[in-house]
Amino acid sequence: MKSTVTIKDVARELGIHHVTVSRALRDTGSVKEETKVLIKQKANELGYKPNRLAQNFRNKRSNVLAVVVPDLRPYFFAKFVSDFMETAKDAGYTVMIFQSGEKPGLEKDIIDSLIGYRVAGVVASVTKDTVQASHFEVLKEENIPYVFFDRAPKETLASQVLVNNFQGAYEAVTAMINSGKRRIAYISTHYKHQIFRDRLEGYKQALQDNDLPSDDELVVEGGFFMKDGFAHAERLMNLEEKPDGILAVRDEIGIGVIKFLKKKGIQVPNDVAVIGFDNDPMGIACEPELTTVQQSIPLMVASSFELLLVQINNGSLNFEKKIIEPKIIYRGSV
Amino acid sequence: MKSTVTIKDVARELGIHHVTVSRALRDTGSVKEETKVLIKQKANELGYKPNRLAQNFRNKRSNVLAVVVPDLRPYFFAKFVSDFMETAKDAGYTVMIFQSGEKPGLEKDIIDSLIGYRVAGVVASVTKDTVQASHFEVLKEENIPYVFFDRAPKETLASQVLVNNFQGAYEAVTAMINSGKRRIAYISTHYKHQIFRDRLEGYKQALQDNDLPSDDELVVEGGFFMKDGFAHAERLMNLEEKPDGILAVRDEIGIGVIKFLKKKGIQVPNDVAVIGFDNDPMGIACEPELTTVQQSIPLMVASSFELLLVQINNGSLNFEKKIIEPKIIYRGSV
Repeated sequence: MKSTVTIKDVARELGIHHVTVSRALRDTGSVKEETKVLIKQKANELGYKPNRLAQNFRNKRSNVLAVVVPDLRPYFFAKFVSDFMETAKDAGYTVMIFQSGEKPGLEKDIIDSLIGYRVAGVVASVTKDTVQASHFEVLKEENIPYVFFDRAPKETLASQVLVNNFQGAYEAVTAMINSGKRRIAYISTHYKHQIFRDRLEGYKQALQDNDLPSDDELVVEGGFFMKDGFAHAERLMNLEEKPDGILAVRDEIGIGVIKFLKKKGIQVPNDVAVIGFDNDPMGIACEPELTTVQQSIPLMVASSFELLLVQINNGSLNFEKKIIEPKIIYRGSV
Repeated sequence: MKSTVTIKDVARELGIHHVTVSRALRDTGSVKEETKVLIKQKANELGYKPNRLAQNFRNKRSNVLAVVVPDLRPYFFAKFVSDFMETAKDAGYTVMIFQSGEKPGLEKDIIDSLIGYRVAGVVASVTKDTVQASHFEVLKEENIPYVFFDRAPKETLASQVLVNNFQGAYEAVTAMINSGKRRIAYISTHYKHQIFRDRLEGYKQALQDNDLPSDDELVVEGGFFMKDGFAHAERLMNLEEKPDGILAVRDEIGIGVIKFLKKKGIQVPNDVAVIGFDNDPMGIACEPELTTVQQSIPLMVASSFELLLVQINNGSLNFEKKIIEPKIIYRGSV
């Protein structure tokens, strides 16, 4: 196994002091142009590779950004991360991705490790159980800017890009009411995060503003996938007073609802309207295609990157909150 | 802005030599147990954080693994990465994810940067255009083990976990022939990677083994998404001699095919059978549910991690090739 070529190896070969070699290779300090060329040629010839870890260590900051998400599998996070990398790359940044697995403990470990990696900035969406922002404070102490997107801790003074979840649910319920529905159910995951609470509030407010009663038996929760939507729909359609509209907080859940309804010969949207959240391409696979509350990922990526870059460039942390207004994508299920 | 607490700060506070403090905090060397406790308490009190970058630099290796994929959006890669992180975490490793965006140039930059980060090992699936493995050779020179999964460069002596793509396509076509189909089309992406060539060979061999002629007008390519499958299906069903079976190299394309057929009132699978690749959950959203060629992700994750770990633990690189046999998941489209 060949050992790593160091700056000292290059210096020895040329009979030049290693500090000069280092300066030439980093294009810093005063080194004569012809010496610089000579050094770079020799470094290349010997197969010298800059040790970025050591470089980062010296320079304190890198051109590396970190993105931390709870789970890479849902379309929303996979798409955000993928698009964020494209945007960051165009601006000369490399992106490292981390997945907290919805575990606050692992999220804390990741954040702690980021300090060690001397990343230039962090974009994060927190776990379903992250309420406090205290484990992010270490970033602030190290002057590493960070921006929350989609899910932020309840109390934080960091910049954040959030979706108006209240409004998304409010408009979805209103759309069903406008199409003649009067008894609308709400299916959530078992996640306790604020974004889901806000959607529930939007749902309730829309009912109230239309003089429709709120009925606890129409609000159900648990699960994340199609099968969960299927099971919830079965329970809801076995109620004495069945719903004629169902809002699901994820498209996958909404598709499960449609699958159950179709299996039972219940017409969508004539008998029961269905709306999901996320604009997951999966919603186009089902029939009728699922109407959904879209949270613009391109807008969230652009805003998150912008809020981060401002802080990196200014060398200071600041607090800015951007709210992305959701938009209903009408398809066939309402 | 508070400055970073160093080992020397802790040493100064306690009046103990900083080498002793360093040893105690890293649990190496001989330090009396009570001194160790004292040092750790003080370090904690002062808010000392180990500088992992410096640690990695000293130790040369870290407990960090890197996963490099072409694109995080397709279900296959998002799921692999997510599951790999879980497996690695259970074994005490942190995982950094990188996305090459299907660009060999960016892939090379990422690999170069990994040497700087002193990762313990790398798992990679290459871009659609990566043929040579030369830009991975730098890892070998640095004695950093790497394993390819799903997509490997054509000529490499690195360990790899591949799917028997030939067999997957062969079995899918055979399944359609067994259900009475005689004129089977093949829809691919525009990607030139070997995995797609192998699928095409499997398709052709299955036709030949069943004495069915191969017809060039039934082999089409281009695109990646539902809309592409929809458009290809439209062209295929406008042929004078229409197909009665269609194999798509991605589930999303297969779903697009089904959507077109249903729109035209063509019965699936009675008039035309459809099979996809990937076992994407999206295939359950459509109707009929899509029969698919499954490449076991849990098996690929376990094999990739195992092949990597053996090399990390032995401190040497080796060459092992694991072939994952695909399995047809029968649903409603055949």
